[in-house]
Amino acid sequence: MLAVHLENGAISLRQVPVPRRGEGFALLRTLVAGICNTDLELLRGYYGFAGTPGHEFVAEVVESDTPTLRGRRVVGEINLPCRQCPWCVKGLGRHCPSRTVLGIVNQPGAFQEYFVLPDRNLHVLPDDLPDERAVFAEPLAAACEILDQVQIPQHETVAVLGDGKLGLLVAMLLAAHGYPVRQFGRHADKLRIAQREGVAVEIAAGPLPVAAYRWVVDATGSAEGLRGAISMVRPCGTVILKSTVHGAVELDTAPAIVQEITLVGSRCGRMEAALPLLKHGIIPVESLIAARYKLEQAPEAFAHAARRGTLKVLLAG
Amino acid sequence: MLAVHLENGAISLRQVPVPRRGEGFALLRTLVAGICNTDLELLRGYYGFAGTPGHEFVAEVVESDTPTLRGRRVVGEINLPCRQCPWCVKGLGRHCPSRTVLGIVNQPGAFQEYFVLPDRNLHVLPDDLPDERAVFAEPLAAACEILDQVQIPQHETVAVLGDGKLGLLVAMLLAAHGYPVRQFGRHADKLRIAQREGVAVEIAAGPLPVAAYRWVVDATGSAEGLRGAISMVRPCGTVILKSTVHGAVELDTAPAIVQEITLVGSRCGRMEAALPLLKHGIIPVESLIAARYKLEQAPEAFAHAARRGTLKVLLAG
Repeated sequence: MLAVHLENGAISLRQVPVPRRGEGFALLRTLVAGICNTDLELLRGYYGFAGTPGHEFVAEVVESDTPTLRGRRVVGEINLPCRQCPWCVKGLGRHCPSRTVLGIVNQPGAFQEYFVLPDRNLHVLPDDLPDERAVFAEPLAAACEILDQVQIPQHETVAVLGDGKLGLLVAMLLAAHGYPVRQFGRHADKLRIAQREGVAVEIAAGPLPVAAYRWVVDATGSAEGLRGAISMVRPCGTVILKSTVHGAVELDTAPAIVQEITLVGSRCGRMEAALPLLKHGIIPVESLIAARYKLEQAPEAFAHAARRGTLKVLLAG
Repeated sequence: MLAVHLENGAISLRQVPVPRRGEGFALLRTLVAGICNTDLELLRGYYGFAGTPGHEFVAEVVESDTPTLRGRRVVGEINLPCRQCPWCVKGLGRHCPSRTVLGIVNQPGAFQEYFVLPDRNLHVLPDDLPDERAVFAEPLAAACEILDQVQIPQHETVAVLGDGKLGLLVAMLLAAHGYPVRQFGRHADKLRIAQREGVAVEIAAGPLPVAAYRWVVDATGSAEGLRGAISMVRPCGTVILKSTVHGAVELDTAPAIVQEITLVGSRCGRMEAALPLLKHGIIPVESLIAARYKLEQAPEAFAHAARRGTLKVLLAG
């Protein structure tokens, strides 16, 4: 079968045997998969990754010991916790230090014809949820994580920094939950996607407003954006750190302490929260699709996804 | 009258006129005042301060338009908000951008025979609360602020990093509230003060435990301590930033985000929370007193306070 291989900053295609599933695992056939910023970071050498990436997917269950799964379309949780360590026992499996992570840490991902994942990681999709919408379950769950972490009072405006895929999902999600949202970005065409969903948008050309919002989400992925978010939040306010900045970031912690700001690190979320939003078309995720490629076009697909300002690039299995 | 003057990194004594109180202000006679780390930072040039420092005090009300205040012993809130700006209107006067701060920002402090503060900033002390205990109202309120900001479940152990004055107050406060507390510091003699109040203490000689506590308070005042606190908190845990680190701190934000850690900046607190604890002797703050000096000995008192490892140095009016 065909598998995408990522190593030393290069994408190639390989012919490899169909993987064998272990006990409790399902064999899955990839229907559609999404290229995420994390995949681009793997390409840039973060995490020293070598292997098959891919953690945003819709797949068909080909083999499983669970009869109700066989033949069904599924999405899946990407973390494979050990289920025995103190974190797992406390219900923090997503943070298990021995976990593997689909397509990211020691677990071959979905950018191949077939891959495996434990039955317990899978969520069966309703028939009326199309593949190209369901493939957003993982990133939309990451946006939903915010609402699991903090309680934002209903009337308060949330500022979202960044108009990349995650920034748009966050802004549209919060707007769908009834929050007034103001999104700051650099791309009028991307901001327009959120604007159509009721988000007030602003091209961040000059300096950002200072101490202006009680709630700020940083989805810029840059150290500059993170510092901007901290200066944008008002005293006693909260900044949700929704994107990862790699390497050391120089932060002046004194203003954050004097102004009693709270910083909340935020990562993966519950697919249970994302799937109903996708099923009912509440977040128009299809508007984020920039291009579709076949699996054998993976090198071109990655090159496209890596171009500045590109939204979601999909790979069809 | 005698006033301590701090300018260009030097402490001197001056003879100045007794200040005149404006409308709504009380004229106060200093009974006892405490030298705080912030005072030592003013001495090192932070905030470009020049004037009379001192914001931890017990004073007698000499003149006031409020008859019930005259002749009473008081402590006082150190922030003087403008009471008109959007922050003040929202009840965030402690963060008013135009505020002055007693002995820190454009408001002569308590290290002089007489000083002024608005009537509304004052808290009358009960007769059975001695001066040398009441003078801890301001720093103990800062420790109490933690419990106003975060809800720590009753059974969870809190780790406190640092065994300076604020670290000890925080550890003893949390222990008094029934939390299991583990304090890490470098001074056996100081840790013993908290240990007597039921705090489990540990000399931080080697590496700190990693991902070990759901709740960590950083009271070290150092960038190294802040990084230690972040590595000490477990996934989804909270680090309370109780001490100010000046200048840019290099932080690797990726682990904080991947592990979904929350950082909470924490500063001044409500004296209403601190005063009952002092009145009833629940926090044995007197054990933190390292030395007492007369106001005219302020240069020696500052030199003593600045010596590494010194706890609270008091100035008597």
